[in-house]
Amino acid sequence: MSSKANKVNKALDEAIPLQNPIKLHESMRYSLLGGGKRVRPILCLAACELVGGDEANAIPIACAIEMIHTMSLIHDDLPCMDNDDLRRGQPTNHKVFGEETAILAGDALLALAFEHVASKSTNVSPDRVLRVIVELSSGIGSKGVVAGQIVDICSEGKEISLDELEYIHVHKTSKLLEAAIVCGAIMGGGDEIEVEKLRKYGRCIGLLFQVVDDILDVTKSSNELGKTAGKDMASNKATYPKLMGLERAKEFAIELVGKAMEELSYFDALRAAPLFRLAEYIAYRQN
Amino acid sequence: MSSKANKVNKALDEAIPLQNPIKLHESMRYSLLGGGKRVRPILCLAACELVGGDEANAIPIACAIEMIHTMSLIHDDLPCMDNDDLRRGQPTNHKVFGEETAILAGDALLALAFEHVASKSTNVSPDRVLRVIVELSSGIGSKGVVAGQIVDICSEGKEISLDELEYIHVHKTSKLLEAAIVCGAIMGGGDEIEVEKLRKYGRCIGLLFQVVDDILDVTKSSNELGKTAGKDMASNKATYPKLMGLERAKEFAIELVGKAMEELSYFDALRAAPLFRLAEYIAYRQN
Repeated sequence: MSSKANKVNKALDEAIPLQNPIKLHESMRYSLLGGGKRVRPILCLAACELVGGDEANAIPIACAIEMIHTMSLIHDDLPCMDNDDLRRGQPTNHKVFGEETAILAGDALLALAFEHVASKSTNVSPDRVLRVIVELSSGIGSKGVVAGQIVDICSEGKEISLDELEYIHVHKTSKLLEAAIVCGAIMGGGDEIEVEKLRKYGRCIGLLFQVVDDILDVTKSSNELGKTAGKDMASNKATYPKLMGLERAKEFAIELVGKAMEELSYFDALRAAPLFRLAEYIAYRQN
Repeated sequence: MSSKANKVNKALDEAIPLQNPIKLHESMRYSLLGGGKRVRPILCLAACELVGGDEANAIPIACAIEMIHTMSLIHDDLPCMDNDDLRRGQPTNHKVFGEETAILAGDALLALAFEHVASKSTNVSPDRVLRVIVELSSGIGSKGVVAGQIVDICSEGKEISLDELEYIHVHKTSKLLEAAIVCGAIMGGGDEIEVEKLRKYGRCIGLLFQVVDDILDVTKSSNELGKTAGKDMASNKATYPKLMGLERAKEFAIELVGKAMEELSYFDALRAAPLFRLAEYIAYRQN
C-alpha cells in the first residue's frame, strides 16, 4: 500500500510544477502534497489491479481523485464554510495564502483533475476515459460531494434524523470513494458486475470512513488527529455517536466492514486482499 | 445569432433540472440562466459550422463553456475577490444565496461542465471529446482564467505595466473565448490550420472584449451596463484607458478587430460571416 502511495505522491508532484503564477501553484501544491493518507488513490489503483488491469494505467485517475478531494477540503475549510484552521496537522490553505487564493487554488485543482485524466490516460481507450470522467465529475458535483456539503451546512444547528445524516455522509464522503474505486475498475477493464460490486464496496467503505471519523472526533485529541478534535460536539453537529450513542456507532462500523467484505467475496481472495486490508485499516485507524 | 443563443438557453435549462438539494440547484440555475449574452457558446457553435461541422454536435460543449464561465463569475464576485453586488443587472449569487452556497454552486457548475461534455457528446469520436476536455480545463485552470484572476487580485493597488495588464486579460478573458472557439472547431472536425487560425482569432476577440469592457466602464452608467460602472476607476484598477488614455484604447480596439478579421480571411467569406459580425458586435457593443 505504501508503494502505491509513493507512486501517487511522485506523480502528483510532477503534475503541478512550481510555475507562474507562483503563489497560485504554491497554494495548490501546499494542500495537495502536504501529507494525507492517499486513501482514494490507493483504492483506485487496488481496484484496477483487482480486475486484472495494469496499475500504471490508473495513476492519472488516482492523481485526479486526490486533486478533486483536496479541492473539496480547501473549500470546505473556508471561513464561510467549516471555518477550520488546521488540516492534516498544518494551517489550512486560506490561513497561509488568503481566502481568495484558496478559492482559486481549489478551482484550479478541479480543472487540472480533468485535464490530467484527459491528457495523460494514453494507454486506455478514449471510451473508458470518458466513462471515468463522468464518474469523477458526478462524484464531486451537485449530486455528489457538493450535495453533501450543502445539506451538511444547511443542517447545522438543526435536529436531523439518521436518514439525513446518512444522506450527508453518503454524498460528502462515499461518492468520491465510490468514484475512486469504480474509476480504477473501469480503467482496469472490469466488467459490469465487477464494477457494481466494487461500487457497493466503495459505498460501505465511504460510510465507514465517516462513522470512524465521527468516533475519532470524540475519542481522540487534536494532537493525535492532526486536526481540531471535539469540534463536532462543540458545534453541536449531528454525528453517528450523537444520534446512535458511541457504542452503537462502533457496532455500526463493524457492520459496515462486514458488508464491504461481503461484496469483495465475489473476487479471488488473494487478489482482493489489498481491498480487504484497506477496509480493516479504515475501520481501525487511529487518526 | 439569437437562434444560437436560444438553443443554448434551452439546452442549459434542461441540463440543470430543479432537483435536490433545491437550494444548490436554484443557486446554479440563478446565475446560469439569469441572462448573459452567451458570447462564448455562440462563438463555439459558429466555429463548429465554419469548419463544416453540425452545430448540434457542439451544443454540449457550448453549454459546458457557459457553465465554466458562470462559475468563474460567481467566484470572482465573492466578497474576498471582487466583492461585487450586481451582475447582469441582478444581485450577485452570494448576495441571494450566501457565500457558502455561491462557492459550492460554482464548484458544482465546473464539475457539471465536464460531466455534460463527457456524457452528451455522443455523435463525435471520443478522441475529439477528450481533446475538447483538455482545451476546456486548461482554459479555466491555473494556466488559464484562474491565472488571470490571481495576477489581477495580486496587482490591485499596484502600478502595473501594459504587458502585465495584457497577461491578466489574455488569461482572464481570452483563454476561455479561445477555448470556446477551438472546441467548436475541433467538434466540427476542423484541421490543424483551421483550429490555429481560429485560436488566434479567439485571442484577439478576447482581448478586444476586455478593452471594450474597460472603455464601457468609464463611458457608461451602471444602469446602461447592468453592473456597477466606474468601479475600475474608483478602485484605482489598471485598465487600458488608464494606461493608454481613452482615445488610444479605442484605437487599440479597432486594431484588434482588424487582426481578428485577418485570421478569418483564411476561410470562405460567406461561411465566416457570423464570426465577422460577432467581432463587430463585441467591438461596438454598448453594454
